[in-house]
Amino acid sequence: MSLAKRNLVTIDDLSNQEIEAVFSLADEMSESMKEQRNLCSGLIMATLFFEPSTRTRLSFEAAMHRMGGSVISVVEMGATSLAKGESIADMARVVGRYADIIVIRHPWEGAAKVAADYAGVPVINAGDGSHEHPTQTLCDLYTLKKERQQVKGLKIALCGDLKYGRTIHSLTYALARFGAARIYFCPGPGLEMPPHVLGKLTQDYGGKLLKAPADDLHSVTQTLAGQSVDAIYITPSDSHQLALMPGVQIKIDISEGAIYVTRLQKERAEDVGRGAVSKKDYPVINARLLKGKGLERTLVMHPLPRIDELAYEIDADPRSMYFEQAARGVPVRMALVALLLGVKKVDIPEEETLLRIDYPLYKRDFGVKCQNPKCVSVQETETRYIKPEFKIIKTKPLTLRCVYCEHETHPQYIASSKWHDGTLEKKRYYSSDSFMLERIKAENLIIFGSESEAQDRGFKRSQYATTPEKGRGGAKR
Amino acid sequence: MSLAKRNLVTIDDLSNQEIEAVFSLADEMSESMKEQRNLCSGLIMATLFFEPSTRTRLSFEAAMHRMGGSVISVVEMGATSLAKGESIADMARVVGRYADIIVIRHPWEGAAKVAADYAGVPVINAGDGSHEHPTQTLCDLYTLKKERQQVKGLKIALCGDLKYGRTIHSLTYALARFGAARIYFCPGPGLEMPPHVLGKLTQDYGGKLLKAPADDLHSVTQTLAGQSVDAIYITPSDSHQLALMPGVQIKIDISEGAIYVTRLQKERAEDVGRGAVSKKDYPVINARLLKGKGLERTLVMHPLPRIDELAYEIDADPRSMYFEQAARGVPVRMALVALLLGVKKVDIPEEETLLRIDYPLYKRDFGVKCQNPKCVSVQETETRYIKPEFKIIKTKPLTLRCVYCEHETHPQYIASSKWHDGTLEKKRYYSSDSFMLERIKAENLIIFGSESEAQDRGFKRSQYATTPEKGRGGAKR
Amino acid sequence: MSLAKRNLVTIDDLSNQEIEAVFSLADEMSESMKEQRNLCSGLIMATLFFEPSTRTRLSFEAAMHRMGGSVISVVEMGATSLAKGESIADMARVVGRYADIIVIRHPWEGAAKVAADYAGVPVINAGDGSHEHPTQTLCDLYTLKKERQQVKGLKIALCGDLKYGRTIHSLTYALARFGAARIYFCPGPGLEMPPHVLGKLTQDYGGKLLKAPADDLHSVTQTLAGQSVDAIYITPSDSHQLALMPGVQIKIDISEGAIYVTRLQKERAEDVGRGAVSKKDYPVINARLLKGKGLERTLVMHPLPRIDELAYEIDADPRSMYFEQAARGVPVRMALVALLLGVKKVDIPEEETLLRIDYPLYKRDFGVKCQNPKCVSVQETETRYIKPEFKIIKTKPLTLRCVYCEHETHPQYIASSKWHDGTLEKKRYYSSDSFMLERIKAENLIIFGSESEAQDRGFKRSQYATTPEKGRGGAKR
Repeated sequence: MSLAKRNLVTIDDLSNQEIEAVFSLADEMSESMKEQRNLCSGLIMATLFFEPSTRTRLSFEAAMHRMGGSVISVVEMGATSLAKGESIADMARVVGRYADIIVIRHPWEGAAKVAADYAGVPVINAGDGSHEHPTQTLCDLYTLKKERQQVKGLKIALCGDLKYGRTIHSLTYALARFGAARIYFCPGPGLEMPPHVLGKLTQDYGGKLLKAPADDLHSVTQTLAGQSVDAIYITPSDSHQLALMPGVQIKIDISEGAIYVTRLQKERAEDVGRGAVSKKDYPVINARLLKGKGLERTLVMHPLPRIDELAYEIDADPRSMYFEQAARGVPVRMALVALLLGVKKVDIPEEETLLRIDYPLYKRDFGVKCQNPKCVSVQETETRYIKPEFKIIKTKPLTLRCVYCEHETHPQYIASSKWHDGTLEKKRYYSSDSFMLERIKAENLIIFGSESEAQDRGFKRSQYATTPEKGRGGAKR
Repeated sequence: MSLAKRNLVTIDDLSNQEIEAVFSLADEMSESMKEQRNLCSGLIMATLFFEPSTRTRLSFEAAMHRMGGSVISVVEMGATSLAKGESIADMARVVGRYADIIVIRHPWEGAAKVAADYAGVPVINAGDGSHEHPTQTLCDLYTLKKERQQVKGLKIALCGDLKYGRTIHSLTYALARFGAARIYFCPGPGLEMPPHVLGKLTQDYGGKLLKAPADDLHSVTQTLAGQSVDAIYITPSDSHQLALMPGVQIKIDISEGAIYVTRLQKERAEDVGRGAVSKKDYPVINARLLKGKGLERTLVMHPLPRIDELAYEIDADPRSMYFEQAARGVPVRMALVALLLGVKKVDIPEEETLLRIDYPLYKRDFGVKCQNPKCVSVQETETRYIKPEFKIIKTKPLTLRCVYCEHETHPQYIASSKWHDGTLEKKRYYSSDSFMLERIKAENLIIFGSESEAQDRGFKRSQYATTPEKGRGGAKR
Repeated sequence: MSLAKRNLVTIDDLSNQEIEAVFSLADEMSESMKEQRNLCSGLIMATLFFEPSTRTRLSFEAAMHRMGGSVISVVEMGATSLAKGESIADMARVVGRYADIIVIRHPWEGAAKVAADYAGVPVINAGDGSHEHPTQTLCDLYTLKKERQQVKGLKIALCGDLKYGRTIHSLTYALARFGAARIYFCPGPGLEMPPHVLGKLTQDYGGKLLKAPADDLHSVTQTLAGQSVDAIYITPSDSHQLALMPGVQIKIDISEGAIYVTRLQKERAEDVGRGAVSKKDYPVINARLLKGKGLERTLVMHPLPRIDELAYEIDADPRSMYFEQAARGVPVRMALVALLLGVKKVDIPEEETLLRIDYPLYKRDFGVKCQNPKCVSVQETETRYIKPEFKIIKTKPLTLRCVYCEHETHPQYIASSKWHDGTLEKKRYYSSDSFMLERIKAENLIIFGSESEAQDRGFKRSQYATTPEKGRGGAKR
């Protein structure tokens, strides 16, 4: 099992054993930094950063340089061909002919997957919108492992911007896979974990989600005590002892785990009502909070950069791990890059089953599109060549997951492309929750997001098509 | 004949034999990429990019890195000393003391020549406004040669933005020099090949220009059949068979040649009436067009990035060469850089005559200036040290070509600096088409763009000065 | 005495012997450039540039590359985490874990000191606002030394923007330390040397300042003749012979020294009245000026980039040194970087006393703050962790020098933190020029910039507190 030529677009692109292999190599590289200085001689990394970044780009570039490799770099939208309307596919194809490995950060969700589809060389996702940031997750897991030996059984509280924080999304999946005992969600107001992430967590990883009543935090803390809770969902309230938010206190025992806080993703939160994501109620970790019971041995982690949510007074606290996380970014990325480039090899005896489930795929030129406006598949420059593509997660109700941004959509109408051979009523569309969904063969299935989409393609309303307002499920009129 | 220490500002800076030598070395480097990894060890390339670019800059940098060299880089106007009002000469002189070779892209036409004049190290023009882009032309020619063995005898259609497309200008000259049988110009509306390029093509290279009547495309296609046409100039019309433009069809046999399309240079087309350069009528290459007769073996070439003029559907077509062109940019630039740096040498037995004609030069502190507002010689920061300088291309009518941007100007007035010795009427100016042009010795000639320019220098109107409105040629009043 | 692990934030961070050692190594490196190509193999320099720059950044990067090292770089505010509100300390701590040495340019004065305080690796100040630019000073001194053997005894005229020109500030201190015989200040109108620089010059280096009457330039030139003047301060006037400014002439014998002109720092001069810093009256060095008596052997120096203050006509003059200064930036910076990285060592027999005086320090969470709005210590993102800190330069009047930007402040009020033990009147504040300043022990001293600051902390006005308007010094009412 080799990692050479592979991509890292989502954290699920690496199996647990492969992640462990990256960590072993990172250990080795930390201890013999100087001996790596010719490992990548003659090889080129391209860093393509279309969003602000200091640490991620610099740590990738430092990793490549420590191994004697070279770097070519594009920073910022304005200075590049993207300003001329070039597609990600074209850029990836060209840069893939200049460089041996590509690291890309882009505001569109799924952009890294598109780059990987076209580059012809390994592509690493350094953050695609609010979707994923898998190498940050590797640094986070590596820190957990170095400090606590293993991730399995840990109880982790995720605090702050769970909605737009891509590091949170990647980390949540990884924690689930590595068997963290509990993950507590402590979002800022209006920044709750988005439904598609929760969906993937429960659907793909079998996580159990326990929702704490917003106005009854006491019962939540009671629920936590000694129970098997995989996630805790908390909204601001008046409680005591653990002032994660001004006026809000939660009592959780995460002494063996970590408190993980992220900054408010202002640049992505534009579409959220200003009142809803007020900084005032955002969780803050400070010395007073860390005096709380049960936090004696907790690790304080943060992907950086911070704004106000981590007080400088705790920087010298031995529990503060954020600068360690950053520092470990270099050996972890050295290991990853060396493995993907094939200059280092790992011996993983047999292919471990990835947790990813083989959902049936749906792909058509027309019909249903991803509903996420930040998805790469709906951008003007990209629709010239990207066809909408989904995993069919569930049929009741019909639930599609975009293969690019992983947002979910619940389309209301279906039809069959075999209408012409007479086995089905000719060119009619049906409700997606009607019995017809089972009748239509997978290869013939056409899915529409709306009646007008169906009608535009020449389909007519069947008796098994209800409007959502009128009820569901094969209703006859 | 060595290429070391030379510049590449226009494609004419390299002789045909020298270009062939670059290509031979590019072949060699492609085949032994890894063996080049220490060739430029300790040497530095500076990439100075004052216009957006991805591929050109990255491919130069990749070329340098593949040879073990280092790169220092300036990207974008805003981030540099140019924002402080520094001249190109000063920048070149300083960077020429830091780096061993300079690659420059700049919006001002002729900027690369100025850099070359002052740097003290080899300078490569990576695009100066709408003027030239010679290394793109090297990649284009190299692709033609790899795919068709030689350029001589090929029939090439140049389509799209022929007005602002600098890659088109450089390529046209090169095709003429290498003996392409025919070049068909297929411009978008309002984007015709500019007069100064056509002028150089006919004047310097002896090209014959056949202008097809705009409203009679049928006769054009008849003219093409079996004839020796060096260029075809076509404006939009209603024809059949080859939908280069919606509503426009031309029938040309370019089965042995190539279709070359460029994107609309929006950033330079600002001064063109919006209606005139509508994207609607812009040439588009797609699958349907490529089914046309005579295109069975054509190469589809494009300098990239594309917008809409190349359909994604033909990307997998074996005739599509644009990603190959981009990929070949690295070995071609490696070869070029290695030769200019002198780390590789070529043995060209005797100096081949460059096609460039030794026109007489005209240079003065005052008087006629280049009329091109994008010319480097008329920019405020550069007039402090650049004197207007022209080649005298013709005397009837008096035609000057700016040595920087190569635009032509036709000044109306002349005078002599020897007025004081009494051999000529004292301090008078004359029409440039009067008999006086022959009387004044070259070293004494003063040329004015307007009467007021002449009067401002203290010259008075002579009897041999007519106003343009009143007719020409030594008319007496 | 090793330079390894040291910082270069101000020119005073290096002793004269250490500077001489840098120059010796620079000589050595100039002569054996190719042999340095593996000196820094495997090592990384980070260049963090938050202000426009070409030459300083490129020369540092070229220096690192010439020694075989690698570079990671952040250019411009917009493209970085600073746009997300990250502090300099956080950035320095993280980048210090990626790179072996940091070069920083920042608009906030004192920013380089903050970076040095937190990075954990050597930090070089490449310009912090109008504060200092010590490596430019090294290049300047190196040029003086190469051309004139030694700095001692030279007479140097500093012309142009003495107020905002950070290169001027660093150079002035260095010239004083190296024993320049005379420094003539020739500022543009409204661009006089700022008080805190003059203060440091006289206070720390014992310089004598002679102020020439603005309307009596003749007496100034008389004063100069054969006298021991350490500084001359000149404002525009009508004089003769040496047209440093249009309509202004000064006659100075600097034939053995140098004329040093800087460009108008437009970007920093925003807060200055437009009329006051008119370019019209800005000093200009041109051929006519250089024909002046006493300038036969003067060196013309300039940190570049120039705008209008250096005429291009003198570029070829053998006295013009500005391109030499730039060229020498590479070996000087190679030497400096190699020494700070510890890959080269110098043997300086015994620790030479730095000129820096050990003033008592004052530091408190509250009370007096630096009055310079460009000081790093008063920026919103930095006040989270930086406490105001000052050197107490004088007590009569009480004069504090900010340890970050070195601006001076003269706070009016003091108090004692020992009020509670009854030895002093309880929680009262006093005038800083009252006898109480001597009574309060250094460790108990509290300094306030205003009465309201004191009152906000709960202090009440004592009888020994006068308002500045009503007179000074322990006045009883």
